[in-house]
Amino acid sequence: MAKSILVTGGARSGKSLLAEQLTLQFGQPAIYVATAQAGDAEMAARITDHRSRRGDGWTTVETPLALVQTLRDTDDGSPRLVDCLTLWLSNLMLAGADWGGEAADLAASLPALQGPVVLVTNEVGAGIVPANALARDFRDAAGVVNQRIAAACDEVWLSVAGCPMRIKPQ
Amino acid sequence: MAKSILVTGGARSGKSLLAEQLTLQFGQPAIYVATAQAGDAEMAARITDHRSRRGDGWTTVETPLALVQTLRDTDDGSPRLVDCLTLWLSNLMLAGADWGGEAADLAASLPALQGPVVLVTNEVGAGIVPANALARDFRDAAGVVNQRIAAACDEVWLSVAGCPMRIKPQ
Amino acid sequence: MAKSILVTGGARSGKSLLAEQLTLQFGQPAIYVATAQAGDAEMAARITDHRSRRGDGWTTVETPLALVQTLRDTDDGSPRLVDCLTLWLSNLMLAGADWGGEAADLAASLPALQGPVVLVTNEVGAGIVPANALARDFRDAAGVVNQRIAAACDEVWLSVAGCPMRIKPQ
Repeated sequence: MAKSILVTGGARSGKSLLAEQLTLQFGQPAIYVATAQAGDAEMAARITDHRSRRGDGWTTVETPLALVQTLRDTDDGSPRLVDCLTLWLSNLMLAGADWGGEAADLAASLPALQGPVVLVTNEVGAGIVPANALARDFRDAAGVVNQRIAAACDEVWLSVAGCPMRIKPQ
Repeated sequence: MAKSILVTGGARSGKSLLAEQLTLQFGQPAIYVATAQAGDAEMAARITDHRSRRGDGWTTVETPLALVQTLRDTDDGSPRLVDCLTLWLSNLMLAGADWGGEAADLAASLPALQGPVVLVTNEVGAGIVPANALARDFRDAAGVVNQRIAAACDEVWLSVAGCPMRIKPQ
Repeated sequence: MAKSILVTGGARSGKSLLAEQLTLQFGQPAIYVATAQAGDAEMAARITDHRSRRGDGWTTVETPLALVQTLRDTDDGSPRLVDCLTLWLSNLMLAGADWGGEAADLAASLPALQGPVVLVTNEVGAGIVPANALARDFRDAAGVVNQRIAAACDEVWLSVAGCPMRIKPQ
């Protein structure tokens, strides 16, 4: 049975490095499933940074929206690292897609996959309530997605200042 | 002796569901002590959502300000779920009340109650420092309230992506 | 060998009190290394509050920028409490200094110190992504500094609602 792992944490808390290590425990070659699009300079720099750190042994697939289908299409036994769910949610919301249905599909599909999947997400709900209604909606949606995917995963990790804490199972 | 439990976490982190489960371990009927007022559409929708999930076996008391008195008035042995302290603090501050004194009263009253109490609160201090002075004051006050009530409670739980972590006692 | 400890958490989460307790386990007199400058009323009030709580047995050194040098200058075996790295980073960025180089210097210097050091920092990356580019840069930098110093420290603690969690080593 597939192993599915969720890695969460704040910005720059060491999530991606932890997720890479958790992915590589399943062997190589591994597939980096990027939900980002290099649409602006900041994001392009971040993608380049991640790519140079990962080095050889990885192939990259970009999938801003069709994440569930991409996980099925790449399900040849290779470990996959999905980076990240928060950006995927943002892409879905911007595209006017049914993000709740997509998240439910993802949660339902994880146990049926052959190969392991490590998913990165972000903690965005531990600051002050945003003044902006759209930001509040996004924050709520991100929390809902995190809960649904965490419930479907075999393991959940929280990274704080680069220190990994396994929070499911404890 | 009464059992008092604090449940904290970010927005949509699974706090309310965890708090309901912790409350029901003390049996039913249970009392849902709501500090929210259905003053706007967002809040009304949230209250309805919580109410439909809880189902039978619960009665609801609304107490935007007089939380300590309400806990004394309902102290017939039934378990109580207070949802939530952050909104209570916000109500107190908007009313110009002495929130520090109220929080100290609540902390002092918890050990003297006959029935168990589970209190929900929010993590609001792990984002960037707010530019707005009122938001900074609220964030500081919320942190102070969380510390005071946590110190008075027998147990404290942190919910992250729906995964419960008991942080007191560890 | 010196013991270096990082204490992190959100605003008003009990970090400073925990850091004081961890510092005093190494004995007294202890040195409070303040990176704050009493430049505005809010900060002055906070410094006074901390100072009155700590009481006797502490001396205070203010070092808004030259933290690494101050730690060498005070390395007579006394325990030191650095409060806090987030403000130090902010001071460095405002001064146009090479904060990345400074953080690397600090990380490298910790194992070579004779006396113990407890460093306080802040979780600032678990809220919604800030709309403001400067705030995003600061949030990213704070996360990078936290990871680097955490990696160099023997222990890392996370404080939530005044409840201490040791997250390194677990």
